[in-house]
Amino acid sequence: MKKILVVGSVGIDDIETPSGKVEGVPGGSAVYFSLAASIFSNVNFVAVAGSDFPQDIIELMKSRNIDLRGLEIVEGKTFRWSGRYHEDMDKRDTLLTQLNVFENFKPKLPDEYKSSEIIFLANIHPSLQLEVLQSVPRPELIVSDTMNFWINSAPEKVVEVIRRSDIFIVNDAEITLMSGERNFLSAADRILEECPQLKAIIVKLGKYGIYATDGNEEFFLPAYPIRQVVDPTGAGDSFAGGFTGHLAKTGDYSFANIKTACVYGSITASYSVNDFSVSGLKEFDLDDIKDEFNTFKRLTSF
Amino acid sequence: MKKILVVGSVGIDDIETPSGKVEGVPGGSAVYFSLAASIFSNVNFVAVAGSDFPQDIIELMKSRNIDLRGLEIVEGKTFRWSGRYHEDMDKRDTLLTQLNVFENFKPKLPDEYKSSEIIFLANIHPSLQLEVLQSVPRPELIVSDTMNFWINSAPEKVVEVIRRSDIFIVNDAEITLMSGERNFLSAADRILEECPQLKAIIVKLGKYGIYATDGNEEFFLPAYPIRQVVDPTGAGDSFAGGFTGHLAKTGDYSFANIKTACVYGSITASYSVNDFSVSGLKEFDLDDIKDEFNTFKRLTSF
Repeated sequence: MKKILVVGSVGIDDIETPSGKVEGVPGGSAVYFSLAASIFSNVNFVAVAGSDFPQDIIELMKSRNIDLRGLEIVEGKTFRWSGRYHEDMDKRDTLLTQLNVFENFKPKLPDEYKSSEIIFLANIHPSLQLEVLQSVPRPELIVSDTMNFWINSAPEKVVEVIRRSDIFIVNDAEITLMSGERNFLSAADRILEECPQLKAIIVKLGKYGIYATDGNEEFFLPAYPIRQVVDPTGAGDSFAGGFTGHLAKTGDYSFANIKTACVYGSITASYSVNDFSVSGLKEFDLDDIKDEFNTFKRLTSF
Repeated sequence: MKKILVVGSVGIDDIETPSGKVEGVPGGSAVYFSLAASIFSNVNFVAVAGSDFPQDIIELMKSRNIDLRGLEIVEGKTFRWSGRYHEDMDKRDTLLTQLNVFENFKPKLPDEYKSSEIIFLANIHPSLQLEVLQSVPRPELIVSDTMNFWINSAPEKVVEVIRRSDIFIVNDAEITLMSGERNFLSAADRILEECPQLKAIIVKLGKYGIYATDGNEEFFLPAYPIRQVVDPTGAGDSFAGGFTGHLAKTGDYSFANIKTACVYGSITASYSVNDFSVSGLKEFDLDDIKDEFNTFKRLTSF
């Protein structure tokens, strides 16, 4: 079993979806990711929270193979995000973003973290992602994520991160934006040409599932069929957590195992969206996931 | 091998896509459908064309197991449609619709057609679809299609057609519009509750593939990965042609075989969008399709 170092955000969110409304709930890419990944493997956590971050989530993370020595708690307010989802859950409006203690965040890695075999660079400024890479000399696998905000505001830095990564996880809209191509297939081809060291690109297609390619083989996986999505917040980070967690658990980074990791990531994301905030990630274990693995097999076989 | 009776439109199209522009090319739901279905089985064709409809397409159809005794040629102009696709090919603007000889179309069935085992009701006014059903007393299988225009303008008639159908083919936007549900999964559940005689609902998800359910089993199939779609016109009818053609060829209407039919339909549609108008449908045979069937297996297996 490999250890995963994650660097990302810790947040407090206000979320409104067609299923309801919650205020002041825990969120942030590193929190979703690590709760998801810790089902499968051990996580070394690097992030900053304010003194207002709820203690019960810190306790939950501690109880779940998540090493929090890299969590800096700074006097002041935690990063805050408020968003409202549209009726079809595919779109959302950001109502408020307050960086707060995140504004001056510099990732600080405990020495014990420097032997982490896998690094997951969650969605934060690409310069911070690159700083973390400087601190860990020889990881086995680097998995990175980003978002349209950084693709627009720091495109060269984003490309620098992808050039240092083994696996790049991105969504449909982001990869077409980034590549200037007309569709995600051509966009993935283009990024693989420009970054030939990549083992795989994983394109998240929202409710339509996942596309993965290494430039040679291609793989499509539908989304787990959920009638009632309660809260899509963190679905991408939960996917990345299940995905990277499975790779860490097995230590096998082949494309065949990357496909299997996509299945575990999708199942993990399906739990995440079943409830508001990180609540959906509390209520499952590896045995449940095995049942759903078989459901996925039936769903896609012909 | 079963015979398929198709009723639908014959058209002349002007099409502009990011790949180019063509004018006065053959189109129409019955034309796309029958060229696709005739790869697999025999087709009895019911439609109306004007005296300006190109003779070479009529010859092509005759050469391909398509019985044209039900094609009425009326002095005047063929139904005309002009459309322009957006950059991402998912959306299009209709620039012109001229009904012409289609305006007074009443389907007339040659007696020999009345023993057709399968009926495909392509996208025309639901009242015309119902008329055709009156004329064929005991088909084995009725497959129907519609579009948002009829869902908005004649919703009760559309429901009447679905209640008489065994398989209903629809797209994502149409089924959510029709059901008032938030997503296509719940929408399919709802239609199956209201029309419990349905053997299956097939939801076309565009570039994301196909979802099929009989209310018990569910099936997801991605779209065949095509880098460069030239012309999406007729993709849905080509899918329906390959789909219904496979069911006719095998005479097996089980859900397991409906899943296989979805694969053949998707491959057929992928040929259709490779070129403008019906040109893509001229250039393939069953042997090609077997290769692509195996590609689909690889694409979805984990």
